Amino acid sequence: MFPQHVIALKRDGRELSPAEIEAFVRGATDGSWMDYQLSAMLMAIYLNGMTADEVAAYTEAMMNSGVVADLSDVPGIKVDKHSTGGVGDKVSLPLAAMVTACGVPVPMISGRGLGHSGGTLDKLESIPGFNVNLSLPDYAKQVAQVGCALIGQTKDLAPSDKKLYALRDVTATVECIPLICGSIMSKKLAEGIDALVLDVKFGRGAFMKEIEAARELASTMVGIGQAMGKGVRALLTAMDQPLGRAVGNAVEVVESVACLRGEGPADLMEVTYALGEEMLVLGGAADDIASARAKLEGVIADGSAAAKFGEIIAAQGGDAAVVDDPAGVLPAARQTVPLVAAKAGIVQDVDAMEVALAALRLGAGRAKAEDNVNPAVGITGLVKVGETVAEGQPLAVIHADDDESWAAAEVRLRECIKIGDTTVATPPLIAERIG
Amino acid sequence: MFPQHVIALKRDGRELSPAEIEAFVRGATDGSWMDYQLSAMLMAIYLNGMTADEVAAYTEAMMNSGVVADLSDVPGIKVDKHSTGGVGDKVSLPLAAMVTACGVPVPMISGRGLGHSGGTLDKLESIPGFNVNLSLPDYAKQVAQVGCALIGQTKDLAPSDKKLYALRDVTATVECIPLICGSIMSKKLAEGIDALVLDVKFGRGAFMKEIEAARELASTMVGIGQAMGKGVRALLTAMDQPLGRAVGNAVEVVESVACLRGEGPADLMEVTYALGEEMLVLGGAADDIASARAKLEGVIADGSAAAKFGEIIAAQGGDAAVVDDPAGVLPAARQTVPLVAAKAGIVQDVDAMEVALAALRLGAGRAKAEDNVNPAVGITGLVKVGETVAEGQPLAVIHADDDESWAAAEVRLRECIKIGDTTVATPPLIAERIG
Repeated sequence: MFPQHVIALKRDGRELSPAEIEAFVRGATDGSWMDYQLSAMLMAIYLNGMTADEVAAYTEAMMNSGVVADLSDVPGIKVDKHSTGGVGDKVSLPLAAMVTACGVPVPMISGRGLGHSGGTLDKLESIPGFNVNLSLPDYAKQVAQVGCALIGQTKDLAPSDKKLYALRDVTATVECIPLICGSIMSKKLAEGIDALVLDVKFGRGAFMKEIEAARELASTMVGIGQAMGKGVRALLTAMDQPLGRAVGNAVEVVESVACLRGEGPADLMEVTYALGEEMLVLGGAADDIASARAKLEGVIADGSAAAKFGEIIAAQGGDAAVVDDPAGVLPAARQTVPLVAAKAGIVQDVDAMEVALAALRLGAGRAKAEDNVNPAVGITGLVKVGETVAEGQPLAVIHADDDESWAAAEVRLRECIKIGDTTVATPPLIAERIG
Repeated sequence: MFPQHVIALKRDGRELSPAEIEAFVRGATDGSWMDYQLSAMLMAIYLNGMTADEVAAYTEAMMNSGVVADLSDVPGIKVDKHSTGGVGDKVSLPLAAMVTACGVPVPMISGRGLGHSGGTLDKLESIPGFNVNLSLPDYAKQVAQVGCALIGQTKDLAPSDKKLYALRDVTATVECIPLICGSIMSKKLAEGIDALVLDVKFGRGAFMKEIEAARELASTMVGIGQAMGKGVRALLTAMDQPLGRAVGNAVEVVESVACLRGEGPADLMEVTYALGEEMLVLGGAADDIASARAKLEGVIADGSAAAKFGEIIAAQGGDAAVVDDPAGVLPAARQTVPLVAAKAGIVQDVDAMEVALAALRLGAGRAKAEDNVNPAVGITGLVKVGETVAEGQPLAVIHADDDESWAAAEVRLRECIKIGDTTVATPPLIAERIG
């Protein structure tokens, strides 16, 4: 099968057979397709799309291009959650512990932050000693023993995705729903999971700005799950203002711990509960959403969710005391300066993207993949849209390590937090449920 | 200007600026665009097309990627002819000599045959001693002295085209009208010409099977010429049966010499006259088609066209005696075997593609670019559609060097020359004139 013949089929809008798609993905993995042939194919896919069957075959071929984690020794239905990325989105941390505490195993392989989007691994690594680099056998062992492991991608998981993503990045073929879905789902399914809940974000602080695109992404991923015999459900959630009140790394761990005690900000609690409900139902730990909710509230109330978080942290070499005394364990920034309201009024807008860029400027994220993240810096105490503020009241607290980055972040934050006189109605946080 | 940003514009169906197109072509020439970026761009162009302005900018950038021959010392309007390639298409040989004999300089850079399509260079090289590898200065000198030079492409002409064509060949982006037109026109315009006549062929033996595609190709190239201030006209000519009665190399030189004496097959004379008429008008040697025709007939009748062909051959080291005694000069095949009609009737069909493949099987062409061409072998005396044949009358003569290739060619020829009882009306050879 010559690469150019397979490319020509996709170029002409024909549906590729599973064997043709496998040849393409194998070509990316073993080098039998040249980079220029892969990129011509990627552009043809970008412009001509993929059918549901093609996306499923693509995902399966990508998954099988590397090792698929073997969790068959772990009893129960293994369920993971994936978010398409947002600002202040620390949901994975409390959610993994809550769901595990309810008896559903959560094998979770996450990514690092890039650009405006934070990464679960970076947040976890702000906990002293926490090791995200487990081998796949150690990961499987920990899921069996603790019920959960929170690790980073290993190089033997879906290597074709790494290859193709690098090409997409430099050939203007990133923003393509079939390719995005194949990339996400192949890595998630290689974790050894049985089911998956997706948090597909839309809005200014999300990868997908429009709900229509988010819906298409979600439907495509749910379709892949169906084709591969895995339960997949998706929530479309708004990402116009940050989730919760903290944006950074250590500061988000603090908020995660509060969430595990039932004391997190309302929006963070709402999204975490909603995703947890789906996970418990998919994982067979609850018959319906209402009983799942009761179970999740139970593990918060009796402290077992927080204890499970400590157990996971300890298993991965981290200082579990963070669960009881975050401030005593986590790194702190040199300066902690409130940004106060210049006038009284109602918060009209907090632009998630601008807040993310302010946090990036503080050093909390990465502009380039090679950058280091400063775990201590970030933003806390952010006001939410619709809240009333008095003159001189803090709108946020900036945690900075130097004056220069503080000043840059302060300007951005001040500009993007809009105070006015109008009552503001915020749209529902959870817009739709798919699957 | 990042390559991926330019690719994204074309991907999104936007019109590229001349500067953006130049960046792409420069990237192909100097390596500042990676091959995978070039091929993603080529696929985006294939699928989203190019506007007339874009094709003109692309052609100009390709032309300027290398040396542009300087013929400013040659007085007069320099006019060339380009054919998109057919079977038995030896028109360039007699045409160049006829037009030059009429006083219009003809600087002609040609290609070699590949696949079913023969090449002017291969035909010329069947003349003992003929050297097609002149340097550009020597080429310019010969055009000044003789009025014509017939050479092969040098590596410093439009090097970006060589690079991009090699990529197109392995990424399923060859059959794309803007890219084809840019490739042809950049090389032609780099010859240093003022005007160009195009013979755009359509039908079974042509690159473009349908007249619609040929028309689009012709219009695009005429548009490029207009944009670049060069007179360009195109004839759409039928290529369902071979042109003339000879297919091969030396055998086509023999037919070319006959044509120069006014004794070529009627279809070959018709196309040669028609293209020559356009060239004389563009070259300012005639006011209209009718007076151009009279001039061309004049140089045939007085022998000056044949003499000019001899002069060109001699200037390039070839044996000019070929003009007076082709059989005495040109290589001959070991066997010359007629293929006779099994029954009497009217010739219903002679499939040009099948005849070409028979000639290829004899060794007259190349299956791969690295193959050598056998100058002596080929087919002569081919019957034409609509002719009446008696039982036992030759339908063609096969010139072969061995029994095996003869047998293979004989089977193909016998199958593709159809004899029947019906009177056949052949459509006009010259279907349209564009520009």
